Amino acid sequence: MENQKYQECIDACLACAQACSYCAISCLNEEHVAHLKKCIQLDLECAAICRASAEVMSLGSSFSAHLCRVCADACRACAEECSKHAEMGMEHCRVCAEACRKCYEACEAMATPV
Amino acid sequence: MENQKYQECIDACLACAQACSYCAISCLNEEHVAHLKKCIQLDLECAAICRASAEVMSLGSSFSAHLCRVCADACRACAEECSKHAEMGMEHCRVCAEACRKCYEACEAMATPV
Amino acid sequence: MENQKYQECIDACLACAQACSYCAISCLNEEHVAHLKKCIQLDLECAAICRASAEVMSLGSSFSAHLCRVCADACRACAEECSKHAEMGMEHCRVCAEACRKCYEACEAMATPV
Amino acid sequence: MENQKYQECIDACLACAQACSYCAISCLNEEHVAHLKKCIQLDLECAAICRASAEVMSLGSSFSAHLCRVCADACRACAEECSKHAEMGMEHCRVCAEACRKCYEACEAMATPV
Repeated sequence: MENQKYQECIDACLACAQACSYCAISCLNEEHVAHLKKCIQLDLECAAICRASAEVMSLGSSFSAHLCRVCADACRACAEECSKHAEMGMEHCRVCAEACRKCYEACEAMATPV
Repeated sequence: MENQKYQECIDACLACAQACSYCAISCLNEEHVAHLKKCIQLDLECAAICRASAEVMSLGSSFSAHLCRVCADACRACAEECSKHAEMGMEHCRVCAEACRKCYEACEAMATPV
Repeated sequence: MENQKYQECIDACLACAQACSYCAISCLNEEHVAHLKKCIQLDLECAAICRASAEVMSLGSSFSAHLCRVCADACRACAEECSKHAEMGMEHCRVCAEACRKCYEACEAMATPV
Repeated sequence: MENQKYQECIDACLACAQACSYCAISCLNEEHVAHLKKCIQLDLECAAICRASAEVMSLGSSFSAHLCRVCADACRACAEECSKHAEMGMEHCRVCAEACRKCYEACEAMATPV
């Protein structure tokens, strides 16, 4: 497959998008939702960008590297925010932070080809 | 995870969306693209519906079952079309047909809960 | 344009998706976000389904009517929820409820062709 | 509305995504589809990036400007390709090229805020 070089990154983006959507909804249902506004906001943004990146890579697009640049930045920001709540014991934030970190690394590698 | 019951189906939808996007682009680059118009068309439709189904399930939506109903139908149609070209030796169509069949089954199971 | 018959409905879906995304984020930033959980949830679901419906209609897909069936249901549910908060003076909910109602009507018309 | 500053750009992105999807399907159904491969490919890429940009702006995301940077580049490339076929009398390519140019301008303005 020509898109095999993208495969690992596509997988990371799709896993991250899903973790972010799930984290957003889970945060929404937490008692202290008012403290999780920034987390939900970043979750939704990151999910949208991850889904787009995966789609564009699936199309074998020459814009993939540019989109991965934006995606890496979104993932880093979301990982940072989720990490704070993970430390407070929120499991969905812990899972999301990990997915974001993995996606950040995969996108960084795509965004800056050697 | 509350969306764990959806997990298998989400994974099948995301894998199918990706196989469809890749199949569409691969068909487009085949010498006999004129014979693959219906395949490309269905690939694009199926990819869009699979992505939406995965997103809606990731949100834990009560509309998931309804969307999976549409998704199962799209996957069945795309699997049927791709199967024809798989028999003619097109590897991307064989891979896509298989992903569509798996997604069809997963969506059928979601669409008709016992 | 072959997709001209879909045009009004596509426009309604895209306007609704946007109103829903904006309403979700606006609800999230309200002081009483805890009372708006169901609204945010439905906003996000409705936005995802509207975007998918618009995409599938743009492709001239034969699955458009089926997807519009699901979209009409999602829009009705979201309009109902937003209407409650619109009565309490929330402008973004009022705008969203109106966009949902328009999209509901357009999708109903597509979903049940004469 | 807080996202009012994005409104013109969101509208341009959504119109462009739709024109691109429609152009892709129309190209696919042209007799000389083999000559339109690059056009279809760029249409699909551009549509995906435009939809994502509109979604991210609807969320009022701080990544909007970065995504608009990528979107402007995709729109410019697609406008260029479609223009060639517009000159040959393809109406869907003419419409698409115009939508891409408008979206390019709107995204450029967002991407490089004064």
